[in-house]
Amino acid sequence: MDNKAEMQEAIKIQGEVVRKLKSEKASKDQIDEEVAKLLALKAQIGGDNVKHQFVLKTAKGTRDYNPKQMAIRERVFSTIIGCFKRHGAETIDTPVFELKETLTGKYGEDSKLIYDLKDQGGELLSLRYDLTVPFARYLAMNKITNIKRYHIAKVYRRDNPAMTRGRYREFYQCDFDIAGQYDAMIPDAECLKIVHDILSELDLGDFRIKVNDRRILDGMFAVCGVPDDKFRTICSTVDKLDKMPWEDVRKEMVTEKGLSEEAADQIGEYVSLQGGMELAERLLQDQKMCRSKQACAGLSDIKLLFSYLQLFQVTDKVVFDLSLARGLDYYTGIIYEGVLTQAGVAPGSTEAQNGTPAEESVSVGSVAGGGRYDGLVGMFDPKGRKVPCVGVSIGIERIFSILEQKAEASAEKVRTTEVQVMVASAQKNLLEERLRLLTELWNAGIKAEVMYKKNPKLLSQLQHCEESGIPLVAILGEQELKDGVVKLRVVASREEVRVQRTDDLFDHWMGDKSKD
Amino acid sequence: MDNKAEMQEAIKIQGEVVRKLKSEKASKDQIDEEVAKLLALKAQIGGDNVKHQFVLKTAKGTRDYNPKQMAIRERVFSTIIGCFKRHGAETIDTPVFELKETLTGKYGEDSKLIYDLKDQGGELLSLRYDLTVPFARYLAMNKITNIKRYHIAKVYRRDNPAMTRGRYREFYQCDFDIAGQYDAMIPDAECLKIVHDILSELDLGDFRIKVNDRRILDGMFAVCGVPDDKFRTICSTVDKLDKMPWEDVRKEMVTEKGLSEEAADQIGEYVSLQGGMELAERLLQDQKMCRSKQACAGLSDIKLLFSYLQLFQVTDKVVFDLSLARGLDYYTGIIYEGVLTQAGVAPGSTEAQNGTPAEESVSVGSVAGGGRYDGLVGMFDPKGRKVPCVGVSIGIERIFSILEQKAEASAEKVRTTEVQVMVASAQKNLLEERLRLLTELWNAGIKAEVMYKKNPKLLSQLQHCEESGIPLVAILGEQELKDGVVKLRVVASREEVRVQRTDDLFDHWMGDKSKD
Repeated sequence: MDNKAEMQEAIKIQGEVVRKLKSEKASKDQIDEEVAKLLALKAQIGGDNVKHQFVLKTAKGTRDYNPKQMAIRERVFSTIIGCFKRHGAETIDTPVFELKETLTGKYGEDSKLIYDLKDQGGELLSLRYDLTVPFARYLAMNKITNIKRYHIAKVYRRDNPAMTRGRYREFYQCDFDIAGQYDAMIPDAECLKIVHDILSELDLGDFRIKVNDRRILDGMFAVCGVPDDKFRTICSTVDKLDKMPWEDVRKEMVTEKGLSEEAADQIGEYVSLQGGMELAERLLQDQKMCRSKQACAGLSDIKLLFSYLQLFQVTDKVVFDLSLARGLDYYTGIIYEGVLTQAGVAPGSTEAQNGTPAEESVSVGSVAGGGRYDGLVGMFDPKGRKVPCVGVSIGIERIFSILEQKAEASAEKVRTTEVQVMVASAQKNLLEERLRLLTELWNAGIKAEVMYKKNPKLLSQLQHCEESGIPLVAILGEQELKDGVVKLRVVASREEVRVQRTDDLFDHWMGDKSKD
Repeated sequence: MDNKAEMQEAIKIQGEVVRKLKSEKASKDQIDEEVAKLLALKAQIGGDNVKHQFVLKTAKGTRDYNPKQMAIRERVFSTIIGCFKRHGAETIDTPVFELKETLTGKYGEDSKLIYDLKDQGGELLSLRYDLTVPFARYLAMNKITNIKRYHIAKVYRRDNPAMTRGRYREFYQCDFDIAGQYDAMIPDAECLKIVHDILSELDLGDFRIKVNDRRILDGMFAVCGVPDDKFRTICSTVDKLDKMPWEDVRKEMVTEKGLSEEAADQIGEYVSLQGGMELAERLLQDQKMCRSKQACAGLSDIKLLFSYLQLFQVTDKVVFDLSLARGLDYYTGIIYEGVLTQAGVAPGSTEAQNGTPAEESVSVGSVAGGGRYDGLVGMFDPKGRKVPCVGVSIGIERIFSILEQKAEASAEKVRTTEVQVMVASAQKNLLEERLRLLTELWNAGIKAEVMYKKNPKLLSQLQHCEESGIPLVAILGEQELKDGVVKLRVVASREEVRVQRTDDLFDHWMGDKSKD
């Protein structure tokens, strides 16, 4: 659109789009987006009559983290990283964009959600969609056949954002994966142990970890009479069982996907099953299931998995659930998902009296997921050499949302700095002396600050401490300078003490009191 | 290009490009890039005759971080963050992309280096070019008038990469900024103190921090007779003085930029000046310089700055240097740059005998930079309300490069995990017992691992410890199980001790010995 008349026409049309949205009271997001386009057009045409205006917003589906949110985020990361390190993981990092080629053919129909970069000459690039495909690319490229690594980074999906529920277009993934040819189910069980420990430590309320196996799903579809070419699409319908009742899922299978009613009903019987090791044992005896070698292999592995989970002391939270069917194409074996549950019924309410057991709690959403993907690395290897992998991804954004809401609701103040002491003065003309003491503290490794004013009021210095939770004030005055001391004041108790500056005492006192 | 014939033509042409490059023995990077394009075209056209092939590489100018590089990176970050926190900074984060509009008009002619996202419908987006503009957008959007924050994140520039020297298209910036209306030069001096402390703590060798002021530069240009409209272009020529001798800079000014020889020579006299507070005092007496109010304001501030730097005990590393002229458009006051220096002359060599003073060391490159930008936030505010800011950015990639090379050269092994103990066995059929002990250790917060094999050899278990620096092995055997003990072995000394499993002793012993 280099032609000026065309540009002006485009601006006119876009202006009408904006007016229409406003008159229809469309959402702020939607209006902002169209206004941004209008301004971009205006900026392109330039000229004096267009004042440079900005739409002050972040891109759709993204957000800034303010200091409070960062404090929560860092706490969550430190718990998660602590757990990954306890399990002996190394860490790696990969670029935020990959060659477009690298991502092609890995995500099934979700590929449409990939962000592409503009072709500005050179390579065609896309923003990473997850951390698993870059990990597989990294392994193949460096010919690594075993590694236990974690990777915490942002990924990008042009999805419909639902930000209040923690669904963003830019969001963190925290991945832990074990690559290598090992004895069956040992690394798989460790991944579940990790999900268990992280969700416990983060103290998010009760949770369950659902487990299933791709081979059991595929075997089940086969023995129920689902045609081979319908496995994937029926699988994605089954995946909706955590959001839709069985009746609706069945209807979608039969009317939309063209499955026979008989097959659907057989599936229905299986996917209602939940249990532990004993369910796997029972299904291994199931005459129909037995017809599928795949399903049998999967069931034996589930049995083995549970024996390791017992040793890891996590079976109380793990459920073998035949309705679990994760969407991604690349899974080949065990799959799992961690979901937070909240008691759907308050004790003593009607439903509880009617005998609804406490276990039938309502799922409030998936916060972790993963599985085994033994074929993905081979897709990148020129000779197709496989590196078996199993991993888990912690869905951190939903966890942030929950913890932010908790922090919001609680009276406890979230500190956003770690300042231990404020260097203050009640008198004028002591800036230099304040800076001198500040330097002593900094050089001793103490976190300290000062107000950037020549003559701040004592009250405003103390107020700043209260507001940002600084536990100590070091107060300087003419008398203290003469005596070679500092008056240290504990903000909370207003207790004051005079400490020799030359003394070791000073350091000790600071160390003790500033931890608060 | 939906038309198949057109596509095939494009593939043919691209194939020739690749062949030509290969015959010309072009660089691997260049060939890879063109091959990637060819494969992308082939993938688009699809069909059976095209086997799916991958170019296994990261995007041009980017790199993966392997576990060793990550270990170094985390050490550097922890030093830097420690310093930022000592100075009482909070932290924020912003999305990796911004509305294109937000970045427009902030980077002068460097704007061509901005990565744009493809228009896939919705907003027009670009990857962030630095952290300063997103910070200013954040302040204006949230109407924040004062904050002291740090932000560590990756930024993106479509520049010519020089990866061995740490110049990438995706690279980290570590920014610390102080926003707010404060008394002159106090926050500015703190930024220099931070550069000083970080470069000292990272132990990168000797360094200097050059300081100048935009107002001094502009005033100097004015009194030397540079026309107003040539300030910026002459400034960017002056900026080359750290890479080019004065004669070449002068030539560029006169022949390329059309400056008079007289003006150039006057500039030449000033930009050769270096010193400390006394130089600022001397220039305040300089008859010509005095004609510029701007320059005088800048010089007074430099004087004040040095008085604070004295209190902060960092004047030994700071040089007032009139040739420092940083490129970015948005600086309005003081500017600075931290450069690593290495003795250009070995003692006793000819030059040294000729009297070259030790201070005339060779600059090996800028590793930190920053300055005051009082107008940037106002560019985002609808009413143009200004928020004065001063900040510093640590150029971490060059620092990584240096420390990676150091680590490479040194014999010291970089550990990439923190595992304290390996749970091992010399006998068969003890996997379950190993997992049981492993669980005890994990649940006690000890970093531990096990080999994912039913019956690993003791030797390979010990070897793994040697290779990855695990200090302790907990060895289980039939006898130990019967006695309720664990045999703990210190890998380095081969010292062994039997510890009661039920005992607190076990925990204590683990805690002591595993610190290595």
